[in-house]
Amino acid sequence: MSRRNVLKAGGIGAAGLLIGASGAGSLLTFTASADKSSTGIVPFYGSYQAGITTDPQNHLYFASLILTTMDTSEVKQFLKEWTKTAAMMTEGKSIGKAAESLLLPPDDTGEASGLDASNLTVTFGVGPGFFQKLNLTSKQPKELKELPSFSFDALEEKWSGGDLCIQACADDPQVAFHAVRNLVRIARGKVQLKWTQAAFQRTKQADTKSETPRNLFGFKDGTGNPDTSSHSAMNNHVWVQNGWMTGGTYMVVRRVQMFIEVWDRTALGEQEATFGRHRDTGAPIGSENEFDPVDVNKKDVNGNKLIPANSHTALAHGDGKKKILRRSYSYADGLDTKTGSFDAGLLFISFQKSISDQFIPIQTRLANNDKLNEYTIHRGSAVFACLPGVKKGGYLGETLFY
Amino acid sequence: MSRRNVLKAGGIGAAGLLIGASGAGSLLTFTASADKSSTGIVPFYGSYQAGITTDPQNHLYFASLILTTMDTSEVKQFLKEWTKTAAMMTEGKSIGKAAESLLLPPDDTGEASGLDASNLTVTFGVGPGFFQKLNLTSKQPKELKELPSFSFDALEEKWSGGDLCIQACADDPQVAFHAVRNLVRIARGKVQLKWTQAAFQRTKQADTKSETPRNLFGFKDGTGNPDTSSHSAMNNHVWVQNGWMTGGTYMVVRRVQMFIEVWDRTALGEQEATFGRHRDTGAPIGSENEFDPVDVNKKDVNGNKLIPANSHTALAHGDGKKKILRRSYSYADGLDTKTGSFDAGLLFISFQKSISDQFIPIQTRLANNDKLNEYTIHRGSAVFACLPGVKKGGYLGETLFY
Repeated sequence: MSRRNVLKAGGIGAAGLLIGASGAGSLLTFTASADKSSTGIVPFYGSYQAGITTDPQNHLYFASLILTTMDTSEVKQFLKEWTKTAAMMTEGKSIGKAAESLLLPPDDTGEASGLDASNLTVTFGVGPGFFQKLNLTSKQPKELKELPSFSFDALEEKWSGGDLCIQACADDPQVAFHAVRNLVRIARGKVQLKWTQAAFQRTKQADTKSETPRNLFGFKDGTGNPDTSSHSAMNNHVWVQNGWMTGGTYMVVRRVQMFIEVWDRTALGEQEATFGRHRDTGAPIGSENEFDPVDVNKKDVNGNKLIPANSHTALAHGDGKKKILRRSYSYADGLDTKTGSFDAGLLFISFQKSISDQFIPIQTRLANNDKLNEYTIHRGSAVFACLPGVKKGGYLGETLFY
Repeated sequence: MSRRNVLKAGGIGAAGLLIGASGAGSLLTFTASADKSSTGIVPFYGSYQAGITTDPQNHLYFASLILTTMDTSEVKQFLKEWTKTAAMMTEGKSIGKAAESLLLPPDDTGEASGLDASNLTVTFGVGPGFFQKLNLTSKQPKELKELPSFSFDALEEKWSGGDLCIQACADDPQVAFHAVRNLVRIARGKVQLKWTQAAFQRTKQADTKSETPRNLFGFKDGTGNPDTSSHSAMNNHVWVQNGWMTGGTYMVVRRVQMFIEVWDRTALGEQEATFGRHRDTGAPIGSENEFDPVDVNKKDVNGNKLIPANSHTALAHGDGKKKILRRSYSYADGLDTKTGSFDAGLLFISFQKSISDQFIPIQTRLANNDKLNEYTIHRGSAVFACLPGVKKGGYLGETLFY
């Protein structure tokens, strides 16, 4: 049976979902969103930065940077250049001028020549160190500080922190990498790479509606996300609405290594009890459809909770009031030389209007009790304030410098 | 101007090439080849393994493995399972049985559920150690031995060697990774990962003909390849035609780090002199079209060679008689912690019927004199005998065990 037909036979393919689901709103998250056009161009300018509520593209290139200047005017200068350059690249244009002189390096590094915009989005954030180094601590949001340490954290400096970040997402990895490379090049001497991560998620198939992507444990990841097409949901959960950060949001990045070989030797029942969902359908245990509501109190005939209290879904869900917008990507980077196993996992990325009120309580519950902790370990962590959107003529971060 | 239009304006877009080129045969290499069907399924069974002359897919997951058993019957057993499993995966099927028992681990790791075949090819090879460990040295081809050391080699054990290799290529990275992961899992206890590399090349755009991909120096890479649609060319350059290796070929893999930041500060004229080609068009210096013949003796009005003698193209071309089939992918893996630069480059892969007669003379010329050596360094190296194709009912490597 083909992988597609397995799903269809159960009546739980994409079409089945569209018919069977009760809450149509939640489905919209996973169909093409209005801002991903058929031209492959996602507008750069707007009230919010793209790449946050944008329907996820297939590839991510993430870079965390160290600021190596303390001169605010230099920083404003490269933020202005980044603005113009990012806008050009998201339109599929070569940056700078066409190479005219053989005596100069070309403005554009060229590896994306001939490729279209590929739905490129470039999303910029600033970390706690940005405010320290530029003597802007009066502007540093209270929300923006290093996370507390959680149980089982095994953070490594080489995957953590950063004064600035660039999240480039595109349907072509070469377009995503090209964007980061050229932006870093523009700020040369003022920023330095701290860590980078290339990552992917299942490609949207041309002939079907998008489905919720599966992570490398084979489970759907992102089902419980708030509805990105709903302005009120995004205002409730994602967008900051006061001060210089109005229209911005906070980003948490965690590099979560997944012990896939161990997982692969685990019985299906144990896997499902760990997630609290069925593997095939993504439905909460005891329910039929992926988007059926999570009822953590539902019991079987023997009075046992259907969704185990220590499952990932039960703990992440909590009382269901606090939500974060997850936009994670899988990585498969090579070998974990310590164990000889695949170094594979998830670059967890979430957006929220308050880290202290949304991310931290959820992650505290997970870190303390999540059954999934037997199969994963957090190797990296960073927080960034994602800048407000830029209007044409403006530049990234300008409200910060008023 | 859009990246596409830059090319069109010069009359050198894909369409321009098709019209302007004199040698139509060479173009076929870069258009969809007959074995990549619109169903997204590349047949696994055949006289030759797929993934060698197959039109390159967008993603590669490469794994080099150590054999941890010396028992030939165990090896034959997993080669038989690999055969069946690889065939199923290339058809977009889940492997093994659908999960029926909650008490057992599922046969298929599941992350490719719902994804189509994505033109997956899985290509298998065996390294020198395979013959040593299985006491099969009488069958070890003379061609299959570690490469001599070349000038400027900076090989690291962690990127070199291996007793077996799996090259999974697909238009979806999750499908490629899924293939390697499940094959390694099947041979658990008999093989161990030695090194792996995820890589990509520019995505073929849906609305245009494929073009020769650009490497991370922004130059087209693969222009000089022999014509994969020509049986005689493939017999001349790629396929072994006697002994147990009939229908097989030899694979050389080199992990070539590229100093992209240094390159990006280099004048266009210097870049072009280094490659011996124009960056925009890919044409040999002094010519107009990508596929114009390379004439290393052509001179300008002052009597200087148009294509510098120490350029990559001049040295790789030599007298033009020896060719290898290159099928390389770019990688961008993170940071080179020694320098704080991008760790990016090329996973160079070539196929040839004779390593000693084809690869080694070319690489010796390049290693000794190539101007490109200022910008690259070879970090890894491996050689494999790619097994003959498998007929239905047969299994990988069976001619080796007769």
